[in-house]
Amino acid sequence: MNIRIGYGIDFHQLVEGRDLFIGGVKIPHDKGALGHSDADVLLHAICDALLGALSLGDIGVHFPDTAAEFKNIDSKILLAKTYALICAEGYKVVNIDASLCLEAPKIKPYVPQMQEVIASILAITVKDVSVKATTTEKMGFVGRKEGLVAHAVCLLSSS
Amino acid sequence: MNIRIGYGIDFHQLVEGRDLFIGGVKIPHDKGALGHSDADVLLHAICDALLGALSLGDIGVHFPDTAAEFKNIDSKILLAKTYALICAEGYKVVNIDASLCLEAPKIKPYVPQMQEVIASILAITVKDVSVKATTTEKMGFVGRKEGLVAHAVCLLSSS
Amino acid sequence: MNIRIGYGIDFHQLVEGRDLFIGGVKIPHDKGALGHSDADVLLHAICDALLGALSLGDIGVHFPDTAAEFKNIDSKILLAKTYALICAEGYKVVNIDASLCLEAPKIKPYVPQMQEVIASILAITVKDVSVKATTTEKMGFVGRKEGLVAHAVCLLSSS
Ligand SMILES: [Zn+2]
Ligand SMILES: [Zn+2]
Ligand SMILES: [Zn+2]
Repeated sequence: MNIRIGYGIDFHQLVEGRDLFIGGVKIPHDKGALGHSDADVLLHAICDALLGALSLGDIGVHFPDTAAEFKNIDSKILLAKTYALICAEGYKVVNIDASLCLEAPKIKPYVPQMQEVIASILAITVKDVSVKATTTEKMGFVGRKEGLVAHAVCLLSSS
Repeated sequence: MNIRIGYGIDFHQLVEGRDLFIGGVKIPHDKGALGHSDADVLLHAICDALLGALSLGDIGVHFPDTAAEFKNIDSKILLAKTYALICAEGYKVVNIDASLCLEAPKIKPYVPQMQEVIASILAITVKDVSVKATTTEKMGFVGRKEGLVAHAVCLLSSS
Repeated sequence: MNIRIGYGIDFHQLVEGRDLFIGGVKIPHDKGALGHSDADVLLHAICDALLGALSLGDIGVHFPDTAAEFKNIDSKILLAKTYALICAEGYKVVNIDASLCLEAPKIKPYVPQMQEVIASILAITVKDVSVKATTTEKMGFVGRKEGLVAHAVCLLSSS
C-alpha cells in the first residue's frame, strides 16, 4: 500500500451581497464569501489538500480565477474534477480532516450536510470526512469578521 | 492496519490576571490565556486533531464553553476524555506533531515536561509527541502579543 | 513499516534590501525575507515538519538564530542537516506537501525548480514534494504584503 499526505489552506473575505457557501452547503448569513467561484473556502482547502498529496499543482493552477469558465462556479464541480485527477493516479481518499476558522455564523448545524456532500463526491463515508470549526477568539481578520479560513489535511492510498 | 490523519488548530487571547497553561504545564509569565477552561491552546489543538481523525466532532461539540462543568477545567481532563473516545473506536495514537505560534515566553525549557504530560495521557512515549514553537516575527495578533495559536497533526492506527 | 506525520509552519517579514529565497530558489522581487539565515520560509517549514515527525526538537533548537555559524546561511544546508538527522533515525521521506501564503510575487514559475532542489536534498522525486501557493485575499499581514507564511506536512517511513 502506498500512502500520501496532503494539506490545504484557503482564505476568503466576507462581504455583503454574496451568498455563503461552505462545504457545498448554502448557509443563511448576512454576509457571503467573496471570490471568482462560489468562494467555498472549505471545498477549496480540500481540493488543495488532495492535489498536494499527489503533487498535482494547486487549485489556482487547475481552476484559475481569471478563467471565465470558473466564474461563480459551484465548487462541488471543482471538487469532483479534483477527485477525477486523484482517481486517474490510482489513488483513493482514506480520510479528510478540516478546520474552519470563522467568528460567525455557527456552522455546527450544517456539518452533517457538508459531510454528506463531500463524502458523496469523494466516494467515502461521512465518517471519513471531518469538519470542525473554531473562532479565533476575536483576534485578527477572522476575529473582526472580515474573512474566514479553512485548513484541511488528507490521507490518500493506492493498492 | 487502518491509519487516519487528524489536524487541529486553536486560538486564545493573552491577558493579565490569568495563569498560562500550555501542554498541561503552568508557565511563569506576566499574562495568561483567556478562556472558559484553563485555555490550554496546545492541548485543545491536540484534542481537535484526535477527534477530527475519527470524525467525532470538534472540541466545542464535546466540551462546550457554555457548560458550567467545564468552567476553568484542567484541559488534561479534556485530553483524557478525548483519548477515551479514540480508544472506544479501537484506535491508538501513532504520533503527534504540534507547533505553537507565540511571541513570548520562550517555551523550550518546558517542552520535555509537556511531552511527559501528553504522552502519559495518550499512552505513547515522549518520542511520539513533538512540541515545537515559533514566533510570527512580530506580525499579526501573535506578533503583537495579543494571543497565541497552536497547530497539531496526528496519525492514528487500528489493528 | 513504521509511518510518522510531521507539520511545520514558518513566518518571515518582507522588507526592502534583502533577497527573496523560497524553496531554495532566488526569486526576483522588490522585497526579500528578513531573518538571521537566508530566511527561506518554505525550507524552514519543511525542516520543522521533518524534525517534528520524529520529535527531534524544532529548527530553533538545531539552528538557533543567535548562532554566528547560521548568519545568512543558505537554508538548503539546514535542510540537508535536517535530512541527515532523519536518516540517522532510520527514516526516509514518503512525501511532503507545502502551502505558501503570500500576496506577491507569483511563485508558480519557480515551483518546478523548488521541487528539484528539495527533492534532490531529500532523496525523493519531484512528485514527492508539492509546493502550492495562495494569497490571503488581501487580509492580515500577508494581505498587506508585510510578510509571508509557509505550512508544510510530511509523511516519513522506516522499514
Ligand atoms: Zn478559495
Ligand atoms: Zn482552546
Ligand atoms: Zn524561518
